Order: sequence, then C-alpha cells, then structure tokens
Amino acid sequence: MSVNVVDVEDVGDPRLDDFRDLNSVDRRPDLPTGRGLVIAEGVLVVQRMLASRFAPHALLGTARRLEELRADLDGSDIPYYRVEPTVMADAVGFHLNRGVLAAARRPAELSPAGVVAHARTIAVLEGVNDHENLGSIFRNAAGLGVDGVLFGAGCADPLYRRAVRVSMGHALLVPFAKAQRWPADLHLLRERGFRLLAMTPDPGAATLADAMTELADDRVAILVGAEGPGLTETTMRASDVRVRIPMSRGTDSLNVATAAALAFYERARSDH
Amino acid sequence: MSVNVVDVEDVGDPRLDDFRDLNSVDRRPDLPTGRGLVIAEGVLVVQRMLASRFAPHALLGTARRLEELRADLDGSDIPYYRVEPTVMADAVGFHLNRGVLAAARRPAELSPAGVVAHARTIAVLEGVNDHENLGSIFRNAAGLGVDGVLFGAGCADPLYRRAVRVSMGHALLVPFAKAQRWPADLHLLRERGFRLLAMTPDPGAATLADAMTELADDRVAILVGAEGPGLTETTMRASDVRVRIPMSRGTDSLNVATAAALAFYERARSDH
Repeated sequence: MSVNVVDVEDVGDPRLDDFRDLNSVDRRPDLPTGRGLVIAEGVLVVQRMLASRFAPHALLGTARRLEELRADLDGSDIPYYRVEPTVMADAVGFHLNRGVLAAARRPAELSPAGVVAHARTIAVLEGVNDHENLGSIFRNAAGLGVDGVLFGAGCADPLYRRAVRVSMGHALLVPFAKAQRWPADLHLLRERGFRLLAMTPDPGAATLADAMTELADDRVAILVGAEGPGLTETTMRASDVRVRIPMSRGTDSLNVATAAALAFYERARSDH
Repeated sequence: MSVNVVDVEDVGDPRLDDFRDLNSVDRRPDLPTGRGLVIAEGVLVVQRMLASRFAPHALLGTARRLEELRADLDGSDIPYYRVEPTVMADAVGFHLNRGVLAAARRPAELSPAGVVAHARTIAVLEGVNDHENLGSIFRNAAGLGVDGVLFGAGCADPLYRRAVRVSMGHALLVPFAKAQRWPADLHLLRERGFRLLAMTPDPGAATLADAMTELADDRVAILVGAEGPGLTETTMRASDVRVRIPMSRGTDSLNVATAAALAFYERARSDH
C-alpha cells in the first residue's frame, strides 16, 4: 500500500496554507474571490471528493483519519499532510472534529446543456441563498433520484465548505450548472422536452401527486424558490404547471430543502 | 389598546434574569436542571407561544418588535420589558436579531394516553438527540398532518430554545409526551388500534407507498430512530411493519427529519 504521507510539525508550514483560517471572513481559502478552493471535510466527504470531478491536490489530517482513508488513497500521489490534532486546530483556526480535510481547485464549470442532456429529472433553484439549505437540497437530490441541478439567479455557492459538508459530499457528485441568462435559459429546458413545475404555496395550484402522476412519462424540471419569498413571478410565468404540497396548518411550515425533498420523492414515486 | 409595557434601562435589572446568558452552558434559563423555562424567540414563535399551552409570564424585546406584537398582546397583563437593542444584547449575551423573547414556565407534561387519544397519525421518536432535527420534525409534523409526538428513550429536549426556534414554534403546538416505559409503552398504541411502522434503510422492508396504502384505514404510528444508528432492534421487533424510503444512491443520504417528512407526507397522501 503506497500513500504519499508527509509529516508536518510546524503550523507555519506554507504547505498548510490551503487549509488555513477556514472560519475567517476574508481569508478563507474557499472564498470564490480568493483561492476559490473546494474543501471537503471528514472521511466520508473526502471519499466522495476522491470519486468526483473535484480532484483534490492535497489533504490535511490526523494519523487516525489517514488510517481510515488509506485504502482510498492507495496508489495516489496526492500528499497527505499528517499532523497532530493541535497543529491542525491551530492551522484551521478551530478544533475540527472530523479530523481530515481535502482541497481541490475549481474545475471548469459545467454547462446547463451538458447537465440536462441525459437527465430525466432536474431541480432548478432560484434565490436559494442559504448554504445549509443548498447542501440539504443536494443531499436530497442524490438520495431521491434527481439527475442534476440548475442554478438561477440569487443562489449561494454550492461549493462553499458548509454546503459541501451538509450535502454529505453530494454537491461534488450531483452535476450542476449556472444559468447564463435567467430566467430566459428555462427555454433551453422546454426545447429539450422538460415540463417545468413551479413549487408554490398557492392553494389553487395542482397537488404534487396529481401533477407528477400527470407527467410520469415526461422529463421534469422542479423549480424551487427561497423559503419565504418563493419563486419570482417572472419565473412562475415561465413555468408550465404550478404545484403545491398539501399542508395541514399554514403554509410557512416547511423548510425549502424539505419541500424540495417531497417533490423529488413524489417524482420518483410517479416516474415511469 | 392596552399592553403592559415596562421600560427597563439597567441591564442588571433582576426582571431580565429569565432571559439572561442564553448561550451560557451552565446558566441558561432554559436548562431543565435550572430554571427550566421555555423560551420563544422572534415575533412568529412568540405569537405561537401565546396561542399554545405554554403561557408566557414575561417578554423582553425592542420597541420595534413590541409594535409588531401589540395586537397579540392587547388586553393581556404579561409584562413586556421594553429595552434598547444594546441592553438586550448585553442581557442575553449576544445580538439577537429576532429582537424579542418570551419566557414560560413548564406546565405539567402531557400523558402518552392523552396525546394519542384522538390522533390518527403520530410520530414516535427514539434516540433523536439533536435539537435541530427535533425542531425540524415538529415543523414537518405540523405541516404534514401529524397529530402528536411520542418520545422513546434517548431523545433531546423539544423545549430547548433551539429546538423551539427551528420548529418555528410548532414544538409548542403539536402535543407530545414521553413514554414512561420504553419500548413497553408501544403496547399502549397497539391496544388503541395503531399500526406501528418502523422506518429502516433495510432494502427488504416495504416501501413507504405500499405500507401506507395498505394502512390507509388504520391509525398509524411512524417510528423514527436517530440518523446513523436508526431504531434499536428491540423497538424494531415491537413494531408491525418495517418501511423504507426508496433511495437511489446509498442509504445514508437523508437527514432524519427529511426521512420523517417523507413518511408524514406519504401518510397524508394515503390516509382515507
């Protein structure tokens, strides 16, 4: 078994720079305006990064986590900077319970056309600007059979460290792309045979169950807006069907990622 | 319009004690081993507390939030301690963006028999020891028609401030009770005609859709375990049906509150 292990004892070692000050508002290495790195944390998420198109160029972690990852790293030349937990905490800026990090440079972005090319079901997000919700949506998409994610206006960065963590690494695995023109790019979906379903609390909208049953033979794009404001009226008008989750006590009562999960679930349940 | 407004300028005023040091590990007023208060934060959650069996005995907030709550408080004699935002931050221990808090003493706990008496659907939780997940489960229960929650062993306190906040106040509105003997109390449910569905990632289990369709005429208890370990084997054996969510890529991919939401949704979809 061959792994490129490099012991590092000095917290000031420049080889740790890609992992430094992870909570710093203006120095974080995953800031898109700075190094723009993608950071995976924890054994499971690092494993998923290794299986993804985000090829890490370095890992930082404790001896214990190295053993857990040894089989995954066997034969690779990616350096694993092995450090004591205290050195890791000093570099990162806090005690990182998960004990291992991997850093990857951002590859070229995928195109919307590429992401939707072979998809039967995609999620389209508008205004989802909370990293945890974004991460949860990727986790739910992966678990419930959504093939890709398209970003409209106003969304947070799915490659932010917290989004990647909450997604359990699925933000690295489920293909996503950013619309170039919004919401004009929705036409691209319709041209490819997608039916556009807009999620709304409107009691006059079709239920998820009815809409998904009706569209069981079609390609489907599920449009989700931010918690609170929801989809913009322009985007609503660009969609084919307005759908709602039947709710029992008020319409404020589901988190956006949970609402998306119910739509994904209903789609998987009805898809032929 | 009559509201009992009391202006407080001194951060040391003992009338603020029920709201002091909210993030303090050992002095928080909502510690069950201390004052054991229930704390609602933000206008919406305070409104829900006012509508719940958790009658607040005092509120602390800014002038702005008082105006938003004035109609809800009209005619009540509950004191609203009106403070400057800086005084509030100093008392609470951090800047509380939501600007208003209400404190209630814990009323007597409900009995399991009382909670399930008129319920068609209940959630039964075991080992759910994360306050955010617990809060989300209450929010999902309220939105998706679950009538009550029964707590088995190993669960966190649903009245902890963060659980109440994440639940959007529904932890105060959806009735819940703690099992006295666990899992022996599950018999109480079966005696009352409930069918017990245990959520599991086991690929040999029935799908949610099949199980809920089969039980559409019955009272149903949905048993959910902690993310990771899931339900204990003893509890599994005490249930009637094992049910799973059809998953596309691995079985680790849903958060416990999301998994519960899918079960609640499927139940509401199939219930006659």
